[in-house]
Amino acid sequence: MTKKEMAQANLENLYRIFTVPEAPDSTLGQIDHAITDNVTGFLQEHVVALQREMEEIEKDFTNPCIPEEPTFVSEYTEFVKDKLVAQSVHTAAPSFVGHMTSALPYFMLPLSRIMIALNQNVVKVETSKAFTPMERQVLAMLHRLIYNFDDNFYPEWIHKSQYALGAFCSGGTIANITALWAARNRLLGPSGDFKGIAQEGLFRAMQHLQCNGLAVLVSRRGHYSLGKAIDVLGLGRENLIAVDTDENNRIDMKQLRYQYALLKEKGIRPIALVGIAGTTETGNVDPLNEMADFASEIGCHFHVDAAWGGPTLFSEKYRHLLSGIERADSVTIDAHKQLYVPMGAGMVLFKDPTALSAIEHHAAYILRHGSKDLGSHTLEGSRPGKSMLVHAGLSIIGRKGYELLIDMGIEKAKMFAEKVNQHPDFELISEPELNILTYRYNPSWLQLAMSQGSAEQVSKANQLLDQVTRLVQKHQREAGKSFVSRTSLRAKAYCDETLTVFRVVLANPLTTDEILSAVLEEQCAIVQGKEIQQLLQDVKNIFSDFEQRQAC
Amino acid sequence: MTKKEMAQANLENLYRIFTVPEAPDSTLGQIDHAITDNVTGFLQEHVVALQREMEEIEKDFTNPCIPEEPTFVSEYTEFVKDKLVAQSVHTAAPSFVGHMTSALPYFMLPLSRIMIALNQNVVKVETSKAFTPMERQVLAMLHRLIYNFDDNFYPEWIHKSQYALGAFCSGGTIANITALWAARNRLLGPSGDFKGIAQEGLFRAMQHLQCNGLAVLVSRRGHYSLGKAIDVLGLGRENLIAVDTDENNRIDMKQLRYQYALLKEKGIRPIALVGIAGTTETGNVDPLNEMADFASEIGCHFHVDAAWGGPTLFSEKYRHLLSGIERADSVTIDAHKQLYVPMGAGMVLFKDPTALSAIEHHAAYILRHGSKDLGSHTLEGSRPGKSMLVHAGLSIIGRKGYELLIDMGIEKAKMFAEKVNQHPDFELISEPELNILTYRYNPSWLQLAMSQGSAEQVSKANQLLDQVTRLVQKHQREAGKSFVSRTSLRAKAYCDETLTVFRVVLANPLTTDEILSAVLEEQCAIVQGKEIQQLLQDVKNIFSDFEQRQAC
Repeated sequence: MTKKEMAQANLENLYRIFTVPEAPDSTLGQIDHAITDNVTGFLQEHVVALQREMEEIEKDFTNPCIPEEPTFVSEYTEFVKDKLVAQSVHTAAPSFVGHMTSALPYFMLPLSRIMIALNQNVVKVETSKAFTPMERQVLAMLHRLIYNFDDNFYPEWIHKSQYALGAFCSGGTIANITALWAARNRLLGPSGDFKGIAQEGLFRAMQHLQCNGLAVLVSRRGHYSLGKAIDVLGLGRENLIAVDTDENNRIDMKQLRYQYALLKEKGIRPIALVGIAGTTETGNVDPLNEMADFASEIGCHFHVDAAWGGPTLFSEKYRHLLSGIERADSVTIDAHKQLYVPMGAGMVLFKDPTALSAIEHHAAYILRHGSKDLGSHTLEGSRPGKSMLVHAGLSIIGRKGYELLIDMGIEKAKMFAEKVNQHPDFELISEPELNILTYRYNPSWLQLAMSQGSAEQVSKANQLLDQVTRLVQKHQREAGKSFVSRTSLRAKAYCDETLTVFRVVLANPLTTDEILSAVLEEQCAIVQGKEIQQLLQDVKNIFSDFEQRQAC
Repeated sequence: MTKKEMAQANLENLYRIFTVPEAPDSTLGQIDHAITDNVTGFLQEHVVALQREMEEIEKDFTNPCIPEEPTFVSEYTEFVKDKLVAQSVHTAAPSFVGHMTSALPYFMLPLSRIMIALNQNVVKVETSKAFTPMERQVLAMLHRLIYNFDDNFYPEWIHKSQYALGAFCSGGTIANITALWAARNRLLGPSGDFKGIAQEGLFRAMQHLQCNGLAVLVSRRGHYSLGKAIDVLGLGRENLIAVDTDENNRIDMKQLRYQYALLKEKGIRPIALVGIAGTTETGNVDPLNEMADFASEIGCHFHVDAAWGGPTLFSEKYRHLLSGIERADSVTIDAHKQLYVPMGAGMVLFKDPTALSAIEHHAAYILRHGSKDLGSHTLEGSRPGKSMLVHAGLSIIGRKGYELLIDMGIEKAKMFAEKVNQHPDFELISEPELNILTYRYNPSWLQLAMSQGSAEQVSKANQLLDQVTRLVQKHQREAGKSFVSRTSLRAKAYCDETLTVFRVVLANPLTTDEILSAVLEEQCAIVQGKEIQQLLQDVKNIFSDFEQRQAC
């Protein structure tokens, strides 16, 4: 071929990439159809139980050079199948109960494809049209779920240009940042000759207010996104005040008042008080009504991080657990958690439909004043039409369907807690309030010994048990049959010592009683390994004097 | 049915939703296949040229109540087809040349489905496994494209836990915020008894530094995301210093020095100097080398916003236009723009692989110290495995394929500019440097009149022409056959007056010469409408004295 012919061939190939669909019998077509026809089957066959070290996997992803020449789609797809799909995590497996991922409803797959093919950009109406009112409707639906304003409210505000009932985000972190950003800017809005923090910045705002800093108050169970939020917003991580919790991982109101008094003494103003409706690690809910009372007493923005627990509002039986959420100024809910939408969808709702004006912005080529462009009230710019999948979930599953999912999750957690309690060799660390619980392996003989041992002995035993928990979790993860996560928590039952524990999240409707029993059995089997037995022997030695006493 | 039977039926239905695939002959299956087999055909049939007012469309999205009962997927899909797909914007149409959207390569659709079905969460290895090293590889590939470090560099850093060569984000806005956040935190890191801005906040940092504020310097063509960034970071929008540009929409270095001197006088420190590699509105590139010189002279972080223009680096012919980008401390590139990945994928790369440590964060249950979890260096938390689509694009299209796309876009823009220049009734406002240009309708008689008119006459004429541009753009958009966007720009040729102009972005490889000619023809036809003719008559009257003189 001459150079000119080659260039022509390249060009034709390029057009083909953009215009010719994948043949159904191509490798990509086959994987695609296998996934369409049977996600669970396909994933189980290709994903579960592949034991491979990360360092091994990394070898397939080490070349930093962008390939010069094009690759055939079929060839690339073989790579995807063997090196990516087969080496990914089967997050939808019913035995994957360690993180906040779950099986997806099937209809999410074809609908996602439509969303991706349409490639709308909801930052502006010009590139999204119907997706803009749809997103506004989704925000109104969630707003109503939380705040339940009367029938005159929604027709007035839902499609009102220049306003938004909330912001659709890539996830709960951006939602929390958006809430605190709006709270900060509202507290430090224009007054007198001060043009507001949005215009003049935090330093001038402090000078204007004559105060020494800004803070956010939240329990020590607050999500780590709040740490990022307070850093990025310029408040400083020291000013994220981690208030102590009670024995149920809920904020201690006395401690909250005390911490507030300390701030006041130092001349530091809270921009927000954050309540948690479903802590990430234990699934507990803060006393939202008491917090709302206190927030109104001190005149502070009240934000509720319900990224996980928000959809509990669907349940007639359990929605009372979130009582007081309707008094929050803003609420975060993640759609990719308990709304069962694919990864990358969060929301923040604001009680006051004008609240987001505190972060409003415009540009000459889009987001012009008076437009209905959603982008004028979001931290993010270009965004996909993911709210379509929330709309689909709410429509197809319905309130009652979600209620069933929520109720099942909570009841399954209670049942699993019961299992842990009844098993002689496990110890429940946090009782489930929603559908999350924590526990650890702690053999009955050791539980007895610890209950009678000295503080020093107990503390030493806990350190060794922490190692046991870490090892069991690691082995179980690596075996790939089931998965629980681990975290560390201060436990009131152990004088506030920090314990490493297993964490279980029960949101997959396909997780059965038998699967949960198998998770515990597998852990008991792992414990029989040499390394862990040695650790348990070390624990035994700590209490040997006690055993000797027993023997007498 | 008894209540119990109903509950059982509901439960079974729910399991079905999570486990039974959509039948190929269901409505959803049909749409899905239609899209699989022929995206362009399907979209053209269903989307283009549907004229419907927003207020009409909104009527289908006004109910704020979440449906109580489940809906059949088939029923819901009819709704999606008629009310959403048919009322969306055909962003992939070859005649849609107004925004930064384009046709997607076909293989992105089945691969996206796989990504969605796997539902990985790349915040942590435990829920993403191979997706973590893959994302790290993608970041390394882009890092190398920009910085081209030697062969020892990448093996050392690519998979090094605790570090990251960049951050994968939902888009360019989060990428820009991440860059400026890291820059701010590095400038104000721990020193002496000051624990750093991340810990103590901006107010204490100013007291420690004894300075009066922080700023970001960028040309007035900077993207609106920088305004959000500076607001959220606590610097205040006043401190986003919009430096004047030269006649080619590039930052004026003299003005930059002048603005910096003003800041210095006021005791305000710049946290970053931002260069633009492809301004959103005109596609121009700042003098990056000169800016890098200046940044190093004043000891300031140099960030380049190459969200749009970054992939120009693929082109051997045009990469010189971005010369100096390799001297930037950080660079933003959007994958959903000229890497042709579906909406929702941006990146920021850092020259120094330790730079992101300035925003590092941890949590007990994930992102533990020493882990390779990507989430410890991103602003966002839970994120989908979108980097897979970038990996696919780079592999399948290859460097040479992207080069072809870039070259075609730039050459098409030159050709279109030529068309505008040759047409007597259009006026080119900004010459294309990359693949973006602006122009307006300005009939030849008026161009002549304006060239000889008084300043006052010209200014009045411009105001009326602005209205013409707005109307033409609106009518063309509403007709739905083709789309150009509009913006307003200060034009040096008109003594820095702000003009409303058409903006054209040429990145869709399917856009042909004929389509572009048709865009201009359609605009000429729209101008013939009564309302616009009346406006043009008004302009004529402004110059009537001139015409009378001509007649003499």
